[in-house]
Amino acid sequence: MKACVITVGNEILKGHTVNSNAAEIGRALYFAGYEVFRGITVPDDPKEIGWAFRAALKTCDLVISSGGLGPTFDDMTVESFAGEFGFKLVVDAETDEKLKERMQRRGIEMTRERTKMATIPEGSTTVQNNVGSAPGIRAKIEGKKIFILPGVPREMRSMLDIIVEEIRLSDSFFTEESIVLKGIPEASLAPLTLELMDKYEGKIYIKTHPGMDENGVSRIEVEISTRTSDSSSGKNIVTKALEEYSLRAEEIKKSLKAD
Amino acid sequence: MKACVITVGNEILKGHTVNSNAAEIGRALYFAGYEVFRGITVPDDPKEIGWAFRAALKTCDLVISSGGLGPTFDDMTVESFAGEFGFKLVVDAETDEKLKERMQRRGIEMTRERTKMATIPEGSTTVQNNVGSAPGIRAKIEGKKIFILPGVPREMRSMLDIIVEEIRLSDSFFTEESIVLKGIPEASLAPLTLELMDKYEGKIYIKTHPGMDENGVSRIEVEISTRTSDSSSGKNIVTKALEEYSLRAEEIKKSLKAD
Repeated sequence: MKACVITVGNEILKGHTVNSNAAEIGRALYFAGYEVFRGITVPDDPKEIGWAFRAALKTCDLVISSGGLGPTFDDMTVESFAGEFGFKLVVDAETDEKLKERMQRRGIEMTRERTKMATIPEGSTTVQNNVGSAPGIRAKIEGKKIFILPGVPREMRSMLDIIVEEIRLSDSFFTEESIVLKGIPEASLAPLTLELMDKYEGKIYIKTHPGMDENGVSRIEVEISTRTSDSSSGKNIVTKALEEYSLRAEEIKKSLKAD
Repeated sequence: MKACVITVGNEILKGHTVNSNAAEIGRALYFAGYEVFRGITVPDDPKEIGWAFRAALKTCDLVISSGGLGPTFDDMTVESFAGEFGFKLVVDAETDEKLKERMQRRGIEMTRERTKMATIPEGSTTVQNNVGSAPGIRAKIEGKKIFILPGVPREMRSMLDIIVEEIRLSDSFFTEESIVLKGIPEASLAPLTLELMDKYEGKIYIKTHPGMDENGVSRIEVEISTRTSDSSSGKNIVTKALEEYSLRAEEIKKSLKAD
């Protein structure tokens, strides 16, 4: 099952905010059994937000967006999503009541902003916000699931925890382990990476992340992952492949020194 | 002028790597006078990489990609880009010679990987890599500029410095300043934000970033930015607007306490 992550906000495109929300959502989706296939970041612009949802739903079965759910003028994810797919906007009475109580408790008068945060596309439901004001939204289009979450990290995270339990796949498990190898150039490992992936007949995926330590010595993180239909066999495959990779890499390192 | 940033790599979608490259590129583009309009992250998949470039070029005048330029099997940005737009792939003789020398110096034999890193789309030129092996690529399609950069941050950064000098706009300057306001809910500032943007007749953009300090007290970063055609007038506009915002926000804070 393929998933897409949409992040909304000029501050991300401008580099004011590093997109840690996309990373957290991506990680949660992987470990819930999904393959994250597209990440799209768009500005606070209704047309672009609409485009992002459409581009995401074209290839993915599940879409999670983050950002643009608050009370200010540039929070426009809900109305842009609804506009793009022709959903009427309605005020969710329960949310409106909760927000009213919350604001009265804090002695704040905010009728227009409250209504905005309680407005959802018709036919969708809310995801409770346990740490902030605006709720998340849970929608469906042609059997595909869409979750619209806020951009404030602690609010997003609290809703993500709720969602993950709802969407976790029971027949797709992702397992990943990694080792760090020093003193071997990435290109010298490239043939080994290919050879082992061939040997395991596409069951494992090997990714090398090149880097350097403080002395300028090559430092490669080798990450081996697999996707299995049960929860336990992945660990064995990955551990075995990683051991083999490690042994073979040591041989390559020795042969480089001998040259 | 609109710009798009593409980042390539499963590790970003999976949340293994937080997308700091996109933030750095976005920031550099903003200060070079561009509006960053789309950010797209795709996996190591030729079809998706091709789609990303096409989606980016549809709305933007300039595209910078990062990732997928190395020697391993899953580094496929160059061939995916070339495939999508029908460019022939050619070996850049100068780059190949440089890589040959570099590898001989380090005593490494790597014919296939070297050729891969020296392969570029016909008609494009290389961006020198001062800190690593694979060069970047500079291409043009229908007058739009495309730069293909590596994903290793220090290599990407070194090429970004070169590129920024080439693409800097001489008639578009971006200025931004921010202040932090404590103890006022974001929604209470929302009407002021709108009012001031109206007053400045679209010349400024105000963005509020809600947060909380360690005691749970609301902490809002208010960011005011402007785009001007000369390099000096932006600062005056932004400073003046920020002073006005700050004064008015203090009044709102007092009125909240008085309630």
